[in-house]
Amino acid sequence: MSIEQEMQTVARNARIASRAIATLSSNTKNELLRNMANGLERAAPSLIAANRIDVETGKKNGLSEAMVDRLVLDESRIKAMADGLREVADLPDPVGEISSMTKRPSGIEVGRMRIPLGVIGIIYESRPNVTADAAGLCLKSGNAVILRGGSEAFHSNSAIGSILQAELKKFNLPVEIVQVVATTEREAVLELLKQEESIDLIIPRGGEGLIRFVAEHSRIPVIKHYKGVCHTYVDAIADFDMAEKICINAKVQRPGVCNSMETLLVHKDAAAIFVPQVARALRAEKVELHGCPICCDLVPDMIPATEEDWHAEYLDLILAIRVVDSIDQAIEHIQTYCSLHTEVIVTREYANAQRFLREVNSSVVMVNASSRFSDGNQFGLGAEIGISTTKLHSFGPMGLEDLTTRKFIVFGHGEVRG
Amino acid sequence: MSIEQEMQTVARNARIASRAIATLSSNTKNELLRNMANGLERAAPSLIAANRIDVETGKKNGLSEAMVDRLVLDESRIKAMADGLREVADLPDPVGEISSMTKRPSGIEVGRMRIPLGVIGIIYESRPNVTADAAGLCLKSGNAVILRGGSEAFHSNSAIGSILQAELKKFNLPVEIVQVVATTEREAVLELLKQEESIDLIIPRGGEGLIRFVAEHSRIPVIKHYKGVCHTYVDAIADFDMAEKICINAKVQRPGVCNSMETLLVHKDAAAIFVPQVARALRAEKVELHGCPICCDLVPDMIPATEEDWHAEYLDLILAIRVVDSIDQAIEHIQTYCSLHTEVIVTREYANAQRFLREVNSSVVMVNASSRFSDGNQFGLGAEIGISTTKLHSFGPMGLEDLTTRKFIVFGHGEVRG
Repeated sequence: MSIEQEMQTVARNARIASRAIATLSSNTKNELLRNMANGLERAAPSLIAANRIDVETGKKNGLSEAMVDRLVLDESRIKAMADGLREVADLPDPVGEISSMTKRPSGIEVGRMRIPLGVIGIIYESRPNVTADAAGLCLKSGNAVILRGGSEAFHSNSAIGSILQAELKKFNLPVEIVQVVATTEREAVLELLKQEESIDLIIPRGGEGLIRFVAEHSRIPVIKHYKGVCHTYVDAIADFDMAEKICINAKVQRPGVCNSMETLLVHKDAAAIFVPQVARALRAEKVELHGCPICCDLVPDMIPATEEDWHAEYLDLILAIRVVDSIDQAIEHIQTYCSLHTEVIVTREYANAQRFLREVNSSVVMVNASSRFSDGNQFGLGAEIGISTTKLHSFGPMGLEDLTTRKFIVFGHGEVRG
Repeated sequence: MSIEQEMQTVARNARIASRAIATLSSNTKNELLRNMANGLERAAPSLIAANRIDVETGKKNGLSEAMVDRLVLDESRIKAMADGLREVADLPDPVGEISSMTKRPSGIEVGRMRIPLGVIGIIYESRPNVTADAAGLCLKSGNAVILRGGSEAFHSNSAIGSILQAELKKFNLPVEIVQVVATTEREAVLELLKQEESIDLIIPRGGEGLIRFVAEHSRIPVIKHYKGVCHTYVDAIADFDMAEKICINAKVQRPGVCNSMETLLVHKDAAAIFVPQVARALRAEKVELHGCPICCDLVPDMIPATEEDWHAEYLDLILAIRVVDSIDQAIEHIQTYCSLHTEVIVTREYANAQRFLREVNSSVVMVNASSRFSDGNQFGLGAEIGISTTKLHSFGPMGLEDLTTRKFIVFGHGEVRG
């Protein structure tokens, strides 16, 4: 079978299997997820053995230490994966929820019922835990899932897939509800992205390169975010100690993630006091500062920022700082350079808080809080399947509900249209 | 300027202009829409003159009578366009609505605010009224719009565009909030579909050929429906007089539209009575019947249905009829042949009504009502911008809300993440 035929078969089987998972009761889905969790823990020795093949191959092929670390599965990581499935089991089931029922002048009653999307394709890189996490969220929301992980985690992902499928079998459910693509060829991804008749949504998870590749080649809708260039704007009238605390948290607590701050904007009336104050605090945390000319005047030894700095997603202990003339210029700067991820204003002025909230159309806009809160768990969505910085379907952190859609339902009593 | 550059400019200017319309108050938008309506009525003579050029050219080029009829603008159609804008002004404004505010354990308050999508591209065929209708809905929902109508309506669409822009000017708003593409080259459509940095959503309106062309070439998300193969299933235990009334209405009231019935399924226990009854009533309305073998046995002179009939969107006084063994077979038939548009069950059995509603995942599922109700106006969405039979973002008839998305908003009090 060619890879083209193989991927067609995978996608078609997923479509057929999706009907079985779509109509399962919440109780059955939850039991299935808990059994899968137990299955993963029971199979830990064979899982670790399969993982060892990937790790050894990775080391031979010269994977960086960080990459190898991401790849490794041990008892505690397997337990964390299993607990992740149990947490998903505990989340409320979005499927079947009926809302917006109204009686229309014609007599019909119209409402909306939440239903699964159908088949979801997840394309991801090295971490094998994504296999279990993504499968759990797709199952709970009534979807079949096709998982295509990185080739460096091939044996680990396949082993996880087999364990999950064994539990599906015990429930007499089609195993194609969860499929791990059984080839490491890159061509398989291209072929999957063509199956628009059978796959409803593609979610890529990984670096910008992977995401751009998927977005460019997919005929299927893709939900994605490329990067997080998050801004914090400190207004003229603000609690500078609060602002300092927020800036330190947003930059330093976990600099390598997409909701950390990359650019700090400071109102000119606050600059003389706040820029030296925050620079001192940031430097104490070993943050390298790239500043606009005014910042460089206010703080010695700052690196002069270039146009590139305003675009940069450092994901590191580096921060760009700019002094702006007004909230208008702050909003203008954000509209020009932001990645539609998360933007923060620190202010005491009610009117400015309101303006910022309304006029900045990133997926998350905050007043007086650290951008690090921008996350499905922190927002109460439960486990996060990803974050979208494009506006169609979902915008911002995505939870179970984002893996569903709503159909219209109509209760009639013999009505016909006049 | 090449067409490529021209379309880039159109799209970029729309993106810039979209910021101005996004933050207008509802009152201002409504006043603008009412002024546009008045403007159209005031300019009726020049609009009719521009339209006459299109009509004369169309006749010369051999357009069918039906096509020419769709193209014509007269006083009463201009009044209808203007009234359409006034109706949109009267609809509630979805933008700015805040929902789902909750206080999280960390202390932050998280909710969602409805915002415009940004820039919407409408690609449509001959009816010039779409120009005003679509512009009105996009404006009301805070979006800039790029309109690309059929070349046969070029002068009419340009004239309508100029009238709407004149009103934008009077409000000191950028005229690029509403742009009618000033070229009839097909290449312009291809170039527009590449502007994914500046256009957020494409809505094609027209025949299946246009829609497939747009879907295949677009890098921008497309919301679409190809066709409406709507089913009515008459269950074993049903009120046959109600079923007859519903079938006649669904097939005969307006056979040329996408929510009319194309296939009738009848439970085998109802067939002996209901198939002859409904066949008589349909034939009295001049409907041609294509039946399965059992139907052909029950009713003389029925045309034997072929595989093609089950796929057919006749848009005409023709109906395919099939007898099924069970509700399972009815659902199976629908899942195989439907276009995810609208499906109806006529039944007296509670459990079957519930099953049909849950298991049939078309965009609209009805119990005991005519499929002709499947329409934004009938469902209370106000004017309809289109209907989606794909599940991402919107599914089913689309109103103003479907031209918006939701961002997360966070009210903090200095919280940082631990």
